[in-house]
Amino acid sequence: MTELRSALAEVVGARHVLAGGDSPPEYAHDESLTVPGAAPGFVVRPGSTAEVAGVLRAAAAHGARVTARGSGTGMSGAAVPEAGGLVVSFERMNRILEIDGADHTATVQPGVTLAALDRAAAAGGLVYPVFPGEMSASIGGTIATNAGGMRAVKYGVTRQHVLGLEAVLASGEVLRTGGKHVKQSTGYDLTQLIVGSEGTLALVTEATVRLYPRLAFQATVLAPFASLQEVTAAVPGIIATGVGPLILEYVDVLTMAAITASEEIDLGVPAAVREKTLAYLVVVLEERTEERLATAVEELAEALTGLGAPDVYVLPDHAASRLIEAREKAFWAAKNAGADDIVDTVVPRAAMAAFLADAAEIAGQHGGLVVGAGHAGDGNVHLAVFQPDPGRRAEILHGIFAAAVSRDGAISGEHGIGAAKKRYFAEFADPVAIELMRRVKRAFDPAGMLGPGVLFD
Amino acid sequence: MTELRSALAEVVGARHVLAGGDSPPEYAHDESLTVPGAAPGFVVRPGSTAEVAGVLRAAAAHGARVTARGSGTGMSGAAVPEAGGLVVSFERMNRILEIDGADHTATVQPGVTLAALDRAAAAGGLVYPVFPGEMSASIGGTIATNAGGMRAVKYGVTRQHVLGLEAVLASGEVLRTGGKHVKQSTGYDLTQLIVGSEGTLALVTEATVRLYPRLAFQATVLAPFASLQEVTAAVPGIIATGVGPLILEYVDVLTMAAITASEEIDLGVPAAVREKTLAYLVVVLEERTEERLATAVEELAEALTGLGAPDVYVLPDHAASRLIEAREKAFWAAKNAGADDIVDTVVPRAAMAAFLADAAEIAGQHGGLVVGAGHAGDGNVHLAVFQPDPGRRAEILHGIFAAAVSRDGAISGEHGIGAAKKRYFAEFADPVAIELMRRVKRAFDPAGMLGPGVLFD
Repeated sequence: MTELRSALAEVVGARHVLAGGDSPPEYAHDESLTVPGAAPGFVVRPGSTAEVAGVLRAAAAHGARVTARGSGTGMSGAAVPEAGGLVVSFERMNRILEIDGADHTATVQPGVTLAALDRAAAAGGLVYPVFPGEMSASIGGTIATNAGGMRAVKYGVTRQHVLGLEAVLASGEVLRTGGKHVKQSTGYDLTQLIVGSEGTLALVTEATVRLYPRLAFQATVLAPFASLQEVTAAVPGIIATGVGPLILEYVDVLTMAAITASEEIDLGVPAAVREKTLAYLVVVLEERTEERLATAVEELAEALTGLGAPDVYVLPDHAASRLIEAREKAFWAAKNAGADDIVDTVVPRAAMAAFLADAAEIAGQHGGLVVGAGHAGDGNVHLAVFQPDPGRRAEILHGIFAAAVSRDGAISGEHGIGAAKKRYFAEFADPVAIELMRRVKRAFDPAGMLGPGVLFD
Repeated sequence: MTELRSALAEVVGARHVLAGGDSPPEYAHDESLTVPGAAPGFVVRPGSTAEVAGVLRAAAAHGARVTARGSGTGMSGAAVPEAGGLVVSFERMNRILEIDGADHTATVQPGVTLAALDRAAAAGGLVYPVFPGEMSASIGGTIATNAGGMRAVKYGVTRQHVLGLEAVLASGEVLRTGGKHVKQSTGYDLTQLIVGSEGTLALVTEATVRLYPRLAFQATVLAPFASLQEVTAAVPGIIATGVGPLILEYVDVLTMAAITASEEIDLGVPAAVREKTLAYLVVVLEERTEERLATAVEELAEALTGLGAPDVYVLPDHAASRLIEAREKAFWAAKNAGADDIVDTVVPRAAMAAFLADAAEIAGQHGGLVVGAGHAGDGNVHLAVFQPDPGRRAEILHGIFAAAVSRDGAISGEHGIGAAKKRYFAEFADPVAIELMRRVKRAFDPAGMLGPGVLFD
């Protein structure tokens, strides 16, 4: 271990190598509710691509296994090291290398936070449209998990915005994929393979991502519905109008009560309507002119009424932004309420109503409760699972994932498999696909050095 | 060979196995201008996934190498078999299995043409937005090459629309990826790996693709510019307005003259303006209401004037659709004019002007000429190369690709590498990336059975 420490210190300088015992406790965990933390042997903080390559060569030489870490805001345990393992933290590689106002791209180091990139893009009238609800998340982490978030219904998820990568392989070789060009048909798309690979294939050291014109006008529309089924059944109808919502979320009444109470938001929904409401649809539109926004809101309101909403509320700007912020913090609200796990299962959007009914029934069968909100436009259902007993909770998760897969869905829409959901992944993913993924893993990382315990055992 | 024939006949029935000598000559080639055709040993026409699996098992048992074929409209020779090899033609697997009007998806067999899918989607008020200029192209072929086309500037390329695949591996195993859900973070994205792999990793037997609301109103705006540099320099400015063009093409004056003459289109541009014009920008907007379209056209016209266009012409519907159709046939116009090769190099869109100047100079240095049109919004430059001498033409291509790569571009935006461009791919792609691609290829197809001579030697 002393030898590894010396080798690492030679690469990054002694002050950027922390022994596990001396390192702050946050390096031992991420935000997963169920993956136990583990103290790393060392935490190393490289400052450049060359240093990352040197670190991986040193790790290989000493048989150390490597867990990459951005901001540690992941939900699946992919940033939790194995006990005694090596954490490569990208906190020092946090520079925005370029905002290109003509090509509408940003080239950044992996430790740049979404908040920092948003500020830099906004200064050029642009936006990087990945808003997964946690702006302290790093670009590297969001690439690792293919982060989505509320605006994915309009803009798509992270993989739609990553144009090129620089990444270091387990061998220490530096790979370059893609570039500032927006499309190519020039060999296999290694960019897309690395996006969503949760730190198991390569360590991203630089990313070129796509930016978009930042539209100036937004309106938030709230539609109460008498049942969760009605709210999710309305979603395909809204998409079909072509209004192209920026955000299209459902929030069940328990979750809405929790977030409005904790944030003291007044949504202006009369008590008589609230009493008959079991779920809300929150729709945000954005446009580049006020006139276009006004007509779009009218179209939307008409569509919502036609789809069964008894009334429709256009929120004042202040209430709207607080509601969206509060919705982004729904995870924290659930955690504070004592949720035992969080799942973010994805199904075809038209299957959401039936899937939610399945989930409620399955939870009940095992003495638990699920409540939640979700990216309704994407069929991405975020459920807080309440059932403290691990065995019974595992039955609930098993049932929920089985229900999702049987409805042509997948275990995770955006949080990833990590260490948290890998037993379900092994059970429910196509076995031919899993075997191919294992072979792809070996093609990138023959010794199994990167992301120990993530995705596969 | 007789044994292979019997084995294939057992799988698909004797009448769906054609010996090379008896098979129509089109099975020997695709639309590449430079890859020589080669007579296959056999052409086999499976009718189901199980039959495709049986064919691949028979091929493996008899050491036959397999070239997948859709409609044969590819531009890179990826559908050209090796001499005596086995062509698997998907012409019988041409059923649209489902148009899902709630989830906005289509599930199709690979032999379905874009034209057939467009008719079926239109009947539901939806659109599959991949229009690569050849509606007889098959879905399987467009997935293999990650086809783009003029509408990619708004909707993105094929890989953005493929949600799930069923594919048969060289081993005969059947792989299932993705599904009707629009996003996932559930292991490596094998869907994205297969899209654009040009038939070298697996044979796609079913695809679920995303559909979008079919917007009812379109307008086509033509802006003449005094130089190719001005036209390409205007592109970032148009994107920055946020009008979100459906189509944003540049057409040089030679190409425009060829397509308007052959199609007898009157664009209404006065002779005095035409004389000072060296290139055109063609911008198509689409909206869901006439009012939104009218205001968007106004915004666009103002932007174009600000960007240097002396005047702006909103084309009558008839002329507009003929111009777009003619632009789609630019390849045929170039071929008829005696073009010796076609390239579809991609660069960052702001680098287009400089790249076009490079290309013209390089062609001139080697006694050739390049003319063209391209997807300006995507930086995807389609150039017809005129230089009959293969050696000098190779110098031109080499120079053009070197120029593109030095400007952070790639060899092909949408046509693919196939057999046509693989020597340049081997030279200009990142060597670390190429080695990884070879390992990925071995992970899928250890014996090198699929797509012989495509991408790699």
